[in-house]
Amino acid sequence: MSLNFAATKKLFVIPEGCIYLDGNSLGPLPKSAISKTRDVVEGQWGKMLITGWNKAGWMQQPIDFGNRIGRLIGAERDHLVVGDTLSIKVYQALASALELRPERKTILSDIGNFPSDIYIAEGLIKSLGKGYEINLVPPEELTKNLNEDVAVLMLTEVDYRTGRMHDMASLNKLAHDVGALTVWDLAHSAGAIEVNLRQVGTDFAVGCTYKYLNAGPGAPAFIYIAPQHANTIRPAISGWLGHAEPFAFEPYYRSGKAIERMRIGTPPVIASAALDAALDIWDQVEMVELRAKSVELTDLFIEKIQDTCQMLVLASPKDAKLRGSQVSFHFEEGYAAIQACISLGVIGDFRAPDIMRFGFAPLYIDEKDVLAACAIISKVMNERLWDRPAYKKKDKVT
Amino acid sequence: MSLNFAATKKLFVIPEGCIYLDGNSLGPLPKSAISKTRDVVEGQWGKMLITGWNKAGWMQQPIDFGNRIGRLIGAERDHLVVGDTLSIKVYQALASALELRPERKTILSDIGNFPSDIYIAEGLIKSLGKGYEINLVPPEELTKNLNEDVAVLMLTEVDYRTGRMHDMASLNKLAHDVGALTVWDLAHSAGAIEVNLRQVGTDFAVGCTYKYLNAGPGAPAFIYIAPQHANTIRPAISGWLGHAEPFAFEPYYRSGKAIERMRIGTPPVIASAALDAALDIWDQVEMVELRAKSVELTDLFIEKIQDTCQMLVLASPKDAKLRGSQVSFHFEEGYAAIQACISLGVIGDFRAPDIMRFGFAPLYIDEKDVLAACAIISKVMNERLWDRPAYKKKDKVT
Repeated sequence: MSLNFAATKKLFVIPEGCIYLDGNSLGPLPKSAISKTRDVVEGQWGKMLITGWNKAGWMQQPIDFGNRIGRLIGAERDHLVVGDTLSIKVYQALASALELRPERKTILSDIGNFPSDIYIAEGLIKSLGKGYEINLVPPEELTKNLNEDVAVLMLTEVDYRTGRMHDMASLNKLAHDVGALTVWDLAHSAGAIEVNLRQVGTDFAVGCTYKYLNAGPGAPAFIYIAPQHANTIRPAISGWLGHAEPFAFEPYYRSGKAIERMRIGTPPVIASAALDAALDIWDQVEMVELRAKSVELTDLFIEKIQDTCQMLVLASPKDAKLRGSQVSFHFEEGYAAIQACISLGVIGDFRAPDIMRFGFAPLYIDEKDVLAACAIISKVMNERLWDRPAYKKKDKVT
Repeated sequence: MSLNFAATKKLFVIPEGCIYLDGNSLGPLPKSAISKTRDVVEGQWGKMLITGWNKAGWMQQPIDFGNRIGRLIGAERDHLVVGDTLSIKVYQALASALELRPERKTILSDIGNFPSDIYIAEGLIKSLGKGYEINLVPPEELTKNLNEDVAVLMLTEVDYRTGRMHDMASLNKLAHDVGALTVWDLAHSAGAIEVNLRQVGTDFAVGCTYKYLNAGPGAPAFIYIAPQHANTIRPAISGWLGHAEPFAFEPYYRSGKAIERMRIGTPPVIASAALDAALDIWDQVEMVELRAKSVELTDLFIEKIQDTCQMLVLASPKDAKLRGSQVSFHFEEGYAAIQACISLGVIGDFRAPDIMRFGFAPLYIDEKDVLAACAIISKVMNERLWDRPAYKKKDKVT
């Protein structure tokens, strides 16, 4: 079943002269997404019009695509659904989880969580107005803050800045030991590392498909709910497609079965064409093999950069077992250095305050790319190319 | 500026032999959406990768597209934003509106509202748990139920089954007279009838773009907030892109200015390519002209059907001033009759329990289509083509 990674590289559009180490922000275009998108637009929407909902299976896409993503992260079948954006999925997971622990008022998270997950929690608990608190601690202090006031432990598995990876299994166990539930954000995990939601007893998980999964800008997100909760939880955003019978147009809400109730509105059919193309590649990938390759690439990158760039301070764990599929460095003029790298064809990105971030996706990055990128980064650093006014102008939004 | 409607018809893909009277459910494909989508996928995502957020203006799309939709419904500039699905936008509007009237506990709506708007309200108030109630009354009883307990009057302007149109101006005034706010769902209004949000003092409005606006299956929704509220309201779903500075990655949420705070996650870039193509047509349309044409078409349709189909009972207001851009009839075997019409090329749809529904979009439907559709519907009814077992099998989801 498994593709070799020399073969997968040919399945993506990578512009000439570009070493793309930013797939952790937005994955590149799978070549087949061009024809798939055209087929959905012209062949399905254009020809089938309204009948596409039945004939082309649009209505079932969120579950169908969910199962294909679910295989990559160890979800039970029919327990993961695609739709909306990651922020919405965080909101749904957190709102439902809090209701399962009504007597508890603390959401525990860490400062390595992606800020917008915290924003969503803030907005939700202000609406609820029931005395909830967010306890935001350094990652190493999570354990000592896990107590019986904690309703939900909400974490991003891989830190978006440093690539530091949490031990999901042990944190799930510690959370469950004190009666708390877990909500995991897999934004930098899905398609990047091995995840086995079922095996480690995760309660809720959410993620996006536009990063390592390569489904395109604004591609839909996903949500997973463990079987023991899926038929119990109440959806806070009780949308049309989460109804048991959406087309009965009943006056009041009745939850659809299990994860179906996390569906909200009309499925994003056109956006999902690219997701479908991306998943055609993922369907042939075994995550254990991808992870092994990712570790090789990131180890090599760290070794070479540390050999040649004294100014860059490793921000990621050196031990691959503690690291996702990205490598980050601290550098005060990191913003300018990233601009200089980009101008020489190495696309990484900058995250405030001083993080230079490089993502490694074995589907289209190989050893040759890593060595070529190291040579360019080393040139930028050692020839002080970052020290040019043009690179210091902060006019970029991402 | 205005296109004539014979010209606009050529801008859409309408399958041979099809009279498409279901644009109120899913609009047809604008021909230019094929190349626009390809350009975004291949020319932007493929070539620009992560830099598309800046270079291709992806990040600004929700406001840019919002302004183009805003012109069609009389919104103030920069007070309408595109994103997510209609259910999410209803949730946002209602949650923010309720907080503006904290001492009041009633959401008033009518049984002509689209059920999923009620579902969303149910889910929201259960989460809030503060004693809110939904008062769901017949449309003609709204006025007598508008009192000082009402926080929000939440209505769909055009009834999805009957096409009955509310008087937005007078209901806004009555609501404001008792201190209530209004949330209007424009799903069957935007691109169908004349709406002037600013002029009639609407507080919140939401809508979708996949119906009359022709932006494709799963196209994004929109939300409008009146200027006097836009900088005051707190977003319940406080998402990343609604933050004042999303890329500062601050640990806590600060609202973006005005309508920007209703943005949630990453903009749906690929889905928006089709919206862009659809808006290229809408940019050249004056709603006053479109409405005049729509009234001509629906009046003609009603006249011809009433002349020839005795079994069909008009469910829509006969007076065009009280009607949106659709015409509906009651017929006990309506489901089978619609299947029979579809088999003969007239695409309408069925809505439980007994509604045969036909939408009229002057951009691609003309008098000739109306007459041809009437001939076919008359054949279906008078030759009792609906009375065949094959048409009675309810296996369709939409």
